[in-house]
Amino acid sequence: MRRSMSETFRPIARTPRGFADKRAADLRAERRIIEAIAEVYERCGFERLDTGAFEYADALGKFLPDSDRPNEGVFALQDDDEQWMALRYDLTAPLARFSAQHWETLPKPFRRYAVGPVWRNEKPGPGRFREFIQCDADTVGSARPEADAEMIAMMSQGLEAIGLQPGQAVVKINNRKLLNGLLSAAGVEDAGQRLAVLRAVDKLDRLGPDGVRHLLGEGRKDESGAFTVGARISASAAERVLAFVTAGQPDRAGTLSSIAEAIGGSAEGDEGLEELAKIDAALTSLGVGADRASFDPSIVRGLEYYTGAVFEAELLLDTTDERGQPMRFGSVGGGGRYDDLVARFTGERTPATGFSFGVSRLIAALRAAGRDSAEKARGPVVVIAFDQAAMAHYFAAAGELRAAGIAAEVYLGTSGMKAQMKYADRRLSPAAVIMGGDEIAAGQVTIKDLDLGRELAAGVTDNQAWRAERPGQVTVSRDELVSVVRRIVDAG
Amino acid sequence: MRRSMSETFRPIARTPRGFADKRAADLRAERRIIEAIAEVYERCGFERLDTGAFEYADALGKFLPDSDRPNEGVFALQDDDEQWMALRYDLTAPLARFSAQHWETLPKPFRRYAVGPVWRNEKPGPGRFREFIQCDADTVGSARPEADAEMIAMMSQGLEAIGLQPGQAVVKINNRKLLNGLLSAAGVEDAGQRLAVLRAVDKLDRLGPDGVRHLLGEGRKDESGAFTVGARISASAAERVLAFVTAGQPDRAGTLSSIAEAIGGSAEGDEGLEELAKIDAALTSLGVGADRASFDPSIVRGLEYYTGAVFEAELLLDTTDERGQPMRFGSVGGGGRYDDLVARFTGERTPATGFSFGVSRLIAALRAAGRDSAEKARGPVVVIAFDQAAMAHYFAAAGELRAAGIAAEVYLGTSGMKAQMKYADRRLSPAAVIMGGDEIAAGQVTIKDLDLGRELAAGVTDNQAWRAERPGQVTVSRDELVSVVRRIVDAG
Repeated sequence: MRRSMSETFRPIARTPRGFADKRAADLRAERRIIEAIAEVYERCGFERLDTGAFEYADALGKFLPDSDRPNEGVFALQDDDEQWMALRYDLTAPLARFSAQHWETLPKPFRRYAVGPVWRNEKPGPGRFREFIQCDADTVGSARPEADAEMIAMMSQGLEAIGLQPGQAVVKINNRKLLNGLLSAAGVEDAGQRLAVLRAVDKLDRLGPDGVRHLLGEGRKDESGAFTVGARISASAAERVLAFVTAGQPDRAGTLSSIAEAIGGSAEGDEGLEELAKIDAALTSLGVGADRASFDPSIVRGLEYYTGAVFEAELLLDTTDERGQPMRFGSVGGGGRYDDLVARFTGERTPATGFSFGVSRLIAALRAAGRDSAEKARGPVVVIAFDQAAMAHYFAAAGELRAAGIAAEVYLGTSGMKAQMKYADRRLSPAAVIMGGDEIAAGQVTIKDLDLGRELAAGVTDNQAWRAERPGQVTVSRDELVSVVRRIVDAG
Repeated sequence: MRRSMSETFRPIARTPRGFADKRAADLRAERRIIEAIAEVYERCGFERLDTGAFEYADALGKFLPDSDRPNEGVFALQDDDEQWMALRYDLTAPLARFSAQHWETLPKPFRRYAVGPVWRNEKPGPGRFREFIQCDADTVGSARPEADAEMIAMMSQGLEAIGLQPGQAVVKINNRKLLNGLLSAAGVEDAGQRLAVLRAVDKLDRLGPDGVRHLLGEGRKDESGAFTVGARISASAAERVLAFVTAGQPDRAGTLSSIAEAIGGSAEGDEGLEELAKIDAALTSLGVGADRASFDPSIVRGLEYYTGAVFEAELLLDTTDERGQPMRFGSVGGGGRYDDLVARFTGERTPATGFSFGVSRLIAALRAAGRDSAEKARGPVVVIAFDQAAMAHYFAAAGELRAAGIAAEVYLGTSGMKAQMKYADRRLSPAAVIMGGDEIAAGQVTIKDLDLGRELAAGVTDNQAWRAERPGQVTVSRDELVSVVRRIVDAG
């Protein structure tokens, strides 16, 4: 049966799948995080850059769309001049495009940060959104390992700026060149085998060394009986890989020595080692100790794309999943060196390094760290609207409070006193202002302390002790309105 | 010839048509405006709400897409479950959807503000973008004219908060019911004729009363000879319309009297008049005088959609176009009462009122008001990188400056001293920090005042007088680094 498109067609009010509405409390947390992190980036000399939501699909790099599957992974559409455009799926691809477009006129190295939504056309699920906010910093045009070190330092300072102390989160660092060098030295040159090695190493956390050993060799059967074909490198090569990925030590210098032993000699490996040594030195100069940034040879950080240092910020706190089971929280952000992205446009290799924080991951991490309630939600003072004829008095009162910097409003519905008080309570108002006919005639105003009411209701305060100094409701001279309300707001 | 998709395919780095990259200086202006306006909204008791970029197309209301023209006016695409989604083209449609979806559980009236990009799939041109930022406030669930008055007061306070004084901008107010009532009284009931009357009135500014008189009657031939068919209402009705639209007086009470005379008697007109009187009273209570918000019966504000009060914020300054010709700047934002939008979903009429500022219009207005350079662009202090072996010293210096709240960076390129100084200058750095081998050995640091250099170059300062207290370059003890740099930064 075809749906009738007549006047009475009523669409169902619903949020598109994988998209979320965000209310004031969440947005306050989000804004606080973004501002704290942006301040770190700016203090480090990064300038903000915003690009549009769309990029031409050919510039995104991930794919060139074909007309059969234009939406593979991204939200794409064809413009009226037939060009395919897609919503950005990260903030790095637009930076690469921008850098290539303006390279001649940019101050170099180009240091920029970016904050904004990205869109991924993936299957949504609980906690899996198709739109989320990233917060990136990148340096384009510097091959120096110190540029990587600065990224790591900024990640660490960002975590601290939002309230995660050393010991609660750490940045783990690795370098792609190390494992590549080791594999070259061990004679593993096949690209497919190398990818399989990376995939196996990426599972160290979950499967342990024995599981990874199987995946480096012939393969592994999991509990369900499913078999994963392994990388099929030699047993001796596998042992060298395992020795490498488990070479992490509590301090960076110690890890550097263990790694040097584990990777044996190869030009690429030595290069990676030298880069890590320089990163260590720069981090130390910047005051970032091993409790905040450590070397960890098991960090893989995605499979392709990165060409040197990689880093990942991880929450160290014990957390639990929805069913109360302990779980590893995992990454809140990461990045690395990618020297090939700008070259897609220009043909010239342009060294670049950067990282991304996922803002909703950071919010979840703060929640896990018990730092969720940092900011108490607060509504406006509500001026009760008793009498249509007295609206001028109510607006004057609200206007005075606003002019004094106190959020205030006149109730503008049509309900009675009781519903208005309930409204004020639901808005989390600190106080209600009541001006009945008698009060107006007497030049007075009644102020009800709603914060106190909520505290009493929650059993937070000792009823009697508080009653003395916070009587719940006072009638004062009209010209004391602002000072009395301010006292309640400040006490809250 | 088909383009080869081989390894060497290089996409051209380009911004999609109608989309813009925004650099730090523009973003600072944008952020300052948004923060100032959001503070006004919050002080008035509005809570922020963010919705996702997409809405289901049927919820947008403007159209139901057909597969032939899915992109008519909006950027639309079909989700993998076959539902059409479109990027929001304003912030009101998502609010209507949200309100309908959550009406039962919302505190009512629901007061929310929203800030974010909207997308319009229209032909781009110079200054015409397909993505721009709006800044809205709306109250859903209050039919009171005082709710409209509050919107008008917030527009006015928003303009003032960003730096436009009374006299530089004004909010003009009208009510749809007045003209509707007048037309009913004059016997003009045909919807097409009424629309043509609105269109004619909307041109009063450009054509003057005589031009509008023609458009109300048979029609009008313009300079090019093109003929526009008129509304074809009677001459007496036309005169009544003209008397109404030109009834504006310098003060609101005066305009109310003139309007009352002009519209004659009709239930709808009287309702509109009564609403305006209440808006006047509330504005007066809120301290918003006629210099900041005036009644103007010629304001039309779009053709459909609004059901009562309409308002428009207008820049009053004389401005010039790109060719230096004087031009009317026009609207920087507007809104009105729309009581039918939520009903699209629920079937129940839900009174609502609100408005929108266009942030890029506000930036342009501030520029026209000569308030563009309020914030001086400022780069980070640059620590010159002389010697690879001394990087630890450079990073320690940058780290100290950052810890003191001063933006700083170590130069991370590979160029020599001269290029590094040029880099610092292009970044608009206040100072460069120079630590050569001798200085490091002697426990000293050289600081170059780049602000001064730029001022001298621009001829802003008297060379000799300044040389005495700002010598351009000083070598001081290493532990004076922060204090000397701070002095330069504070002087800038």
